[in-house]
Amino acid sequence: MKQYTIAILGATGAVGTQMLQCLEEQDVPVGELRLLASARSAGKLMTFKGEEIAIQEARPEAFQGCDFVLGAADDAIARELLPKAVEAGAVVIDNSHAFRLDPDVPLVVPEVNGADALAHHGIIANPNCATIIGLVPTWPLHLAAGVTRMIVSTYQAASGTGAPGMAELEAQIQAMGRGEDIPEPHAFAAQLVSNLIPQIGGFDGEGYTSEEMKLQNEGRKIMHLPELRVNCTCVRVPVMRSHSESITLEFERDITVEEAREILAVAPGVKLVDDRDAASAHDRFPMPLDTSDQDLIWVGRLRRDISNPEPARGITFWCCGDQIRKGAATNAVQILKLLLA
Amino acid sequence: MKQYTIAILGATGAVGTQMLQCLEEQDVPVGELRLLASARSAGKLMTFKGEEIAIQEARPEAFQGCDFVLGAADDAIARELLPKAVEAGAVVIDNSHAFRLDPDVPLVVPEVNGADALAHHGIIANPNCATIIGLVPTWPLHLAAGVTRMIVSTYQAASGTGAPGMAELEAQIQAMGRGEDIPEPHAFAAQLVSNLIPQIGGFDGEGYTSEEMKLQNEGRKIMHLPELRVNCTCVRVPVMRSHSESITLEFERDITVEEAREILAVAPGVKLVDDRDAASAHDRFPMPLDTSDQDLIWVGRLRRDISNPEPARGITFWCCGDQIRKGAATNAVQILKLLLA
Repeated sequence: MKQYTIAILGATGAVGTQMLQCLEEQDVPVGELRLLASARSAGKLMTFKGEEIAIQEARPEAFQGCDFVLGAADDAIARELLPKAVEAGAVVIDNSHAFRLDPDVPLVVPEVNGADALAHHGIIANPNCATIIGLVPTWPLHLAAGVTRMIVSTYQAASGTGAPGMAELEAQIQAMGRGEDIPEPHAFAAQLVSNLIPQIGGFDGEGYTSEEMKLQNEGRKIMHLPELRVNCTCVRVPVMRSHSESITLEFERDITVEEAREILAVAPGVKLVDDRDAASAHDRFPMPLDTSDQDLIWVGRLRRDISNPEPARGITFWCCGDQIRKGAATNAVQILKLLLA
Repeated sequence: MKQYTIAILGATGAVGTQMLQCLEEQDVPVGELRLLASARSAGKLMTFKGEEIAIQEARPEAFQGCDFVLGAADDAIARELLPKAVEAGAVVIDNSHAFRLDPDVPLVVPEVNGADALAHHGIIANPNCATIIGLVPTWPLHLAAGVTRMIVSTYQAASGTGAPGMAELEAQIQAMGRGEDIPEPHAFAAQLVSNLIPQIGGFDGEGYTSEEMKLQNEGRKIMHLPELRVNCTCVRVPVMRSHSESITLEFERDITVEEAREILAVAPGVKLVDDRDAASAHDRFPMPLDTSDQDLIWVGRLRRDISNPEPARGITFWCCGDQIRKGAATNAVQILKLLLA
C-alpha cells in the first residue's frame, strides 16, 4: 500500500496533538510524519505509533516532499505558511478560519458534503467546531424536509480556546476547590468556573459575534443553502472539551418527530441517545462528560417544536460532541481519508 | 405604622433563608416573625434584624394570628399546610408549584401583573424561577409589539435544586480541585461539575420536561396571553446561584433593536448591561457570577433575530438573574409589599 508523507502544522496544540492520535486510530498509511511547530518547541519529542519523532520548526522548507499537510495553527500562521505548502505540491487540510469562506476552497464535513473535498485547488478547509457539531445531525433532517431556519444556543467547552483555555479552567477549579483566590483569567475574558461567558469572538454591526455568524456563513456553504437563516447565541461554559447545542429547526416540508427519530437513528456520524424512560441519566440524553474523547455527535431531547405555528414544520433537539475530535482533528483526518479513497 | 405577624414556611431552606433577608432589606413592617420548618430543625435559632428567633415545627396551629405566610416548602407540604394558614385567616404567598395553575390563585410577577395579586382568595403563587427571570425583560417588549412566540434555552444554576444542590456542586468542585474522585451525585441525576444536565423535572408525552412547560403555562397565565407559544430547553449548568437564558422573541408588530434597547433601559426590574465596546467583560454583557446575590434581571446581547423572515419582528437577547432572590424570595416579598401598599 502506498505510504504518504504527512505534516502537521501546529503539532503541539490541543488540535495538533489530537490529529496525531486520529491519524493512528483511523489507520492512515503514514510513511513519514513531520511535526511542525514554533521554534520554541523544535527538538522536543512526540510519540506516533510507538515511535518518537522530533518536532521541527515550521518553515516553508519543511513542506518539501509532503503529500498532505494538516493545519492546526492559528489564522495568521495558516495564511503565511500554508500557501507555501501548496506551492511545494502538498494538499492542505486546514483547521483555521483563514480559508474557510474562500470560494476556491472547499469547506467540508464528510457526512454532509464529502464530494466537495475532491474539487479542491490545494487547500480544503475544516469548519468551525460548533458548525460541525450542529450540522452533522441537521443535514440528514434537511435531506428529508428542507431546513430553512436554525435557532441555536451553544454551550461551548474551554477546549475551544485550545490547551491554554483548558489549563485555565483546570487552574480555576483547583483554586476554587481549595478555597483559594481564582487566578486572574488570560485565555478567557472573565472567570469561567461557576460562570458563563456569552461572547466568543468579536462583535459585528448587528451585535452577533464572529463565532455566532460562522454557523450561518459556514453552514450555508457546506450545505449549499445560500438562503439558510441562522440565529446563533454562543456561550462559553465551564466544561472541559465537549460542546453542546440546543437546536431548533424549521422546515419547508412536514416532518414528524417519529420520522426525525428514524433518520437520526441511522445517520452517519450520529449516535441517538434519547430514552426518556432510562434509569440512568447517561442513557437518557447526551451530556458533555459522556461525549468527550470520542468521535460521534450524540443527539437527544428530540421533540416537536411546540412553538412553531405549523405543527409538523419544527424539530428541537440537543446534541453534544467532542470539540477537539469531531469538532476539529477527527473531521480533518476524515477529509484526508476521503482524498485517499 | 401597622406591624404584621408573618410566618415563613420552610425557613431553613435556600429560599426560606433568603426570604428572611429580603423582609429585612425591603423594610417590611414585621411585628412578629415565625420561622416554621420540620421537627428536626425546631428549636434551632435564626437571626432577623439582629435578633435570634427559635424555629418552630410547621404545624397548622403555628398559623394562628398570622397576617401573612410566605411559603418556601415543597409541593406536598404546601398542599397539606397552606390551606390551613388560609383557614386561620392568613394571606399566603407560596413559592411551590402546588397552586400556580389553579384558576382561583393569582400567579404574580410584580413588574408584569402586580394588580392580579389584589384579586386573591387567600393564596397568591410565586412563579417558577426561570419563568420570572425570562418574563421580566419579555413583558415590556410585549407591551410595545405583542409577543407571539418565545424560543428559550436556559442555563440553570445548582441553587434551583435548593441548598442540597449547591452543596453537591461545591463538594464536586472541591473533589475535582483536589484531584479526588467525584462523590456519587444525589441532588442531580449525574455529575454537574464540568458537565451539563439537559433535564429538569419529568418528561411529558411530547418530550418536554415539567420545567420547560412552566415557561409556557405560567407565562400564558401571568401575561394573560392564552395563545402564547413557547419552546423551552432547560439545562442545568455548573454555576452556583444565578440562572441565565438565551431568549428569541417573535412579535405581532414591528420593533427595532433601538426601540427594544430604549424600552429595556428603563424597564422595571431590568438592568441593561450591553456595551459591546466596553474594555471589561463585566460591562459588556451579563454573567451569572456578576448577577448573584442582587435583585435585578440583567439583560444584554440584545440584537435583531436575523433568522426571522420578517426583519423587524424578532429580537434575541441574553439575561441573567439570581435564582434564589428574584427567581424566588425577592419576588415573593415584592408581592407581599404590593398587598401592604
